[in-house]
Amino acid sequence: MTSPTPFASGATVADVGEFGLVREFSTRFEQGPQVYVGPGDDAAVLRAPKGHVVVSTDLLVEGRHFRREWAEARDIGRRAAAQNLSDINAMGGRATALTVGLALPRDLPAQWVLELADGIAEEAALVGASIVGGDLTAGSEVVIAVTVIGECSVAPVLRSGAQPGDVLAIAGRQGWAAAGLAVLGRGFRSPRKLVEAHQRPEPPYEAGPAAAQAGATAMIDVSDGLVADVGHVAEASGVAIDIDPTAFPLDEPLQAVGAALGVDPMQFVLGGGEDHPLVATFPPDVPLPDGFREIGRVSTLGDAGVPAVTVAGTAYEGVPGHTHF
Amino acid sequence: MTSPTPFASGATVADVGEFGLVREFSTRFEQGPQVYVGPGDDAAVLRAPKGHVVVSTDLLVEGRHFRREWAEARDIGRRAAAQNLSDINAMGGRATALTVGLALPRDLPAQWVLELADGIAEEAALVGASIVGGDLTAGSEVVIAVTVIGECSVAPVLRSGAQPGDVLAIAGRQGWAAAGLAVLGRGFRSPRKLVEAHQRPEPPYEAGPAAAQAGATAMIDVSDGLVADVGHVAEASGVAIDIDPTAFPLDEPLQAVGAALGVDPMQFVLGGGEDHPLVATFPPDVPLPDGFREIGRVSTLGDAGVPAVTVAGTAYEGVPGHTHF
Repeated sequence: MTSPTPFASGATVADVGEFGLVREFSTRFEQGPQVYVGPGDDAAVLRAPKGHVVVSTDLLVEGRHFRREWAEARDIGRRAAAQNLSDINAMGGRATALTVGLALPRDLPAQWVLELADGIAEEAALVGASIVGGDLTAGSEVVIAVTVIGECSVAPVLRSGAQPGDVLAIAGRQGWAAAGLAVLGRGFRSPRKLVEAHQRPEPPYEAGPAAAQAGATAMIDVSDGLVADVGHVAEASGVAIDIDPTAFPLDEPLQAVGAALGVDPMQFVLGGGEDHPLVATFPPDVPLPDGFREIGRVSTLGDAGVPAVTVAGTAYEGVPGHTHF
Repeated sequence: MTSPTPFASGATVADVGEFGLVREFSTRFEQGPQVYVGPGDDAAVLRAPKGHVVVSTDLLVEGRHFRREWAEARDIGRRAAAQNLSDINAMGGRATALTVGLALPRDLPAQWVLELADGIAEEAALVGASIVGGDLTAGSEVVIAVTVIGECSVAPVLRSGAQPGDVLAIAGRQGWAAAGLAVLGRGFRSPRKLVEAHQRPEPPYEAGPAAAQAGATAMIDVSDGLVADVGHVAEASGVAIDIDPTAFPLDEPLQAVGAALGVDPMQFVLGGGEDHPLVATFPPDVPLPDGFREIGRVSTLGDAGVPAVTVAGTAYEGVPGHTHF
């Protein structure tokens, strides 16, 4: 994965051609022992999995999900993989393989494409998954379509199983990526830690299978925003959930950005959606697995009977959930 | 799958919104017994497969792979699914699930998107596969990213196993889609049979598993062109393959189009690439499975030692293989 680009400096996608890129991809990516047939045939083949098969697809479109001037190709690739791997994580599964479909403008540097793919492969390698196939085509803007396949050796954890009395817990960083995006959006490059958190999220990949093993009743990864995603669990489970904001000590960089931009830094924590932590509910008598900490409680629906999320007992009127249209 | 559109006439993707479309998709598609968790959670979950898992991804970009003025949304969807399902077929597998990623211009009619998805689901239903998930996002042009997952209960058939002495055989129609595309490209709408063959290919979905069961040594689906794809088998297997052109009686519509356009209709057969028939090699003593007929022979490499495809013993200087850049 760390081999240098084989293409001439300045070569574009059109110069190298589809077959040139495919040939490079076919030999570039390490194939793990779970791969029976890797890239280069009509389809890839994975050895029979241990249990259920988990699958998720995400699209990233240039100018909407990433900007080439804000991030290196490698980081864009890592983020594209991370958000998909996180979906497998949120079911309690382990990813085994990815396919990558790319629509590419003809004048794009071929090296940019390789670095993008290297980033995807690097992030996948963190969980032992391989890039096993994909498709390349010309397009007027960069579109990255990643599909991740995984396996679940215990029952997958859905959004719909939260029970009144359960503990709400989180694993992973929350709010840093949103603060980093806010920084970039104002034209700044620091605090560096937050910008990096946006460019390269670090989902807690061990936490998903650990939560499933421990008996989590519901789970989701935070991608629309903490309150919005906890809301998805509340709705699917038919419960009310209260988030305790004091469970989120505001780290120094978040406070600094809040002060610099004149916003309450708590909005990054409650509204941010690109760190990909896991939020799960556990029966109250279950010891939380490593990496999880309590951030709230599940209760029965209130008098109105409407599934709802509150923050310290009151409705949260913050940043609305993200929509793509 | 045949429920009418729930959206107001003339409503665009932007009017309906991401959540409106996702909600409709989540309830619209029938989920087969192989699906444990369908659309709506972080990832889809399929029940443990019988054997290996097969996976393939294809991207279709508007203006490059399809034109909205040349085909109905439903047919574009069927074709998008067919070309992916065909890749699973070519390994000897059976498809079980698809994910669909769509990048959509904001002013696209919402109904067009539903019809596209209905077409994908209809084609998938031919083999018992379900749409289990996907992703929707805005984009400046329509991009359709389909990933198909299947299972292979016997060993998958690769491109690399052809042996000298093997019989080359084909299952399914070949050349009709290319002739139909040529017709459309000249602004005509008939012969209707050929235009329909382009708009809605009919891959021989039963033939792939049958060939694997019968002991096929190599297999590929024709998507780049017959000679080009047989060439991929020759190259991967390190053999020479001769195609017998007399094995392809020229059906009347092909002859008619050849005459009308002033081209040798055999070029549709030898160069065409969108019917998705299967081409497989079998040991000479194996009875060909239903649907296959002999079209050539595999032999050892010639003096030059270069894997090669010939047509009636001579090199074919026809339409070059398709490239996307």
